[in-house]
Amino acid sequence: MSDRRKSILEAAAQCIARNGVRGLRVHDVAQQAGVSTSLLYYHFKDRDGLLAATLDHINGTSSGYRVEGAGEATAFGRLRAHLLGEIQDRDEVRANSIAWNELRASAVFEPEIAGPLARTTGVWETEIAALVEAAQHEDQVRAGLDPKATAVLLTALVEGLSGRWLTGELTAEEARARLSDAIDSLVQT
Amino acid sequence: MSDRRKSILEAAAQCIARNGVRGLRVHDVAQQAGVSTSLLYYHFKDRDGLLAATLDHINGTSSGYRVEGAGEATAFGRLRAHLLGEIQDRDEVRANSIAWNELRASAVFEPEIAGPLARTTGVWETEIAALVEAAQHEDQVRAGLDPKATAVLLTALVEGLSGRWLTGELTAEEARARLSDAIDSLVQT
Repeated sequence: MSDRRKSILEAAAQCIARNGVRGLRVHDVAQQAGVSTSLLYYHFKDRDGLLAATLDHINGTSSGYRVEGAGEATAFGRLRAHLLGEIQDRDEVRANSIAWNELRASAVFEPEIAGPLARTTGVWETEIAALVEAAQHEDQVRAGLDPKATAVLLTALVEGLSGRWLTGELTAEEARARLSDAIDSLVQT
Repeated sequence: MSDRRKSILEAAAQCIARNGVRGLRVHDVAQQAGVSTSLLYYHFKDRDGLLAATLDHINGTSSGYRVEGAGEATAFGRLRAHLLGEIQDRDEVRANSIAWNELRASAVFEPEIAGPLARTTGVWETEIAALVEAAQHEDQVRAGLDPKATAVLLTALVEGLSGRWLTGELTAEEARARLSDAIDSLVQT
């Protein structure tokens, strides 16, 4: 990805995390990224194109900070690290989580967001389903579970607990503890 | 509750379900309820007071349509009915769920909503925790589980799966199936 394109997407995620999707103006994103509005339109066509690319960017960035799980010896360890990595008291993780949850909430009111959101959610679920399946081969996840249905459940749980964390009802530590217990009960052999 | 007060709260939930919290104007709610803006202010003081009362109203209404679970013979049956009742293809349930999820998302950006939301969420969690504890006495829920922590997890899962349902990624039926499986894995003896 070009540096310009990347700075625009980072700026969009920051603007959404600060003011929400409903208040998002393409002009403000361009200003925050230090580029012209016309360059932004050149890269992303329109506001919907920018939002769709921002969703992919957030999901890609999450994969980045999930990298810590890459060192885990087992697929089950990577699955846990991948899911728990979404809830961390780090500015970048928090901003991405706010932007993601806000895009989810906005999709109810802005149908143009729903399609790209479903597609990006599908990418995330596929990543999780692959880890579930790999952990089944290592006998650490119950063989009877459907990997895709399990991935839907686990990612929905991450979103639900993130909502409690981002509104201050749970600390990141408490949300991670709940998630950790749930992963074990839901899937572990 | 007075009829006037009730119609204002119903109107507020409908307005939020239609246009979100960010677009909510007290004047529109009064108009939808067929009352004067000054009567609305008399009952709820200001927009924040109206939002806080709307949260309680949504939670109370949910208890209403969960009533179907009241006929269940066991506490575990009531627990399941209570949670599954939140996801149903009925206009009233859907509108309440949209309004609730939107208030959750808005609380990240409007700190005045976060306090009332935490309080109402606490009421819901307490209801669920009581059912978890009763089901433990009937040996249908694992004795080692902490009722409050379990209630946090189950209600967060309802919110996460509702998000998938309301954005059209899961049908109500699929979301209920995922939730039903999860309740069994997470708590059942």
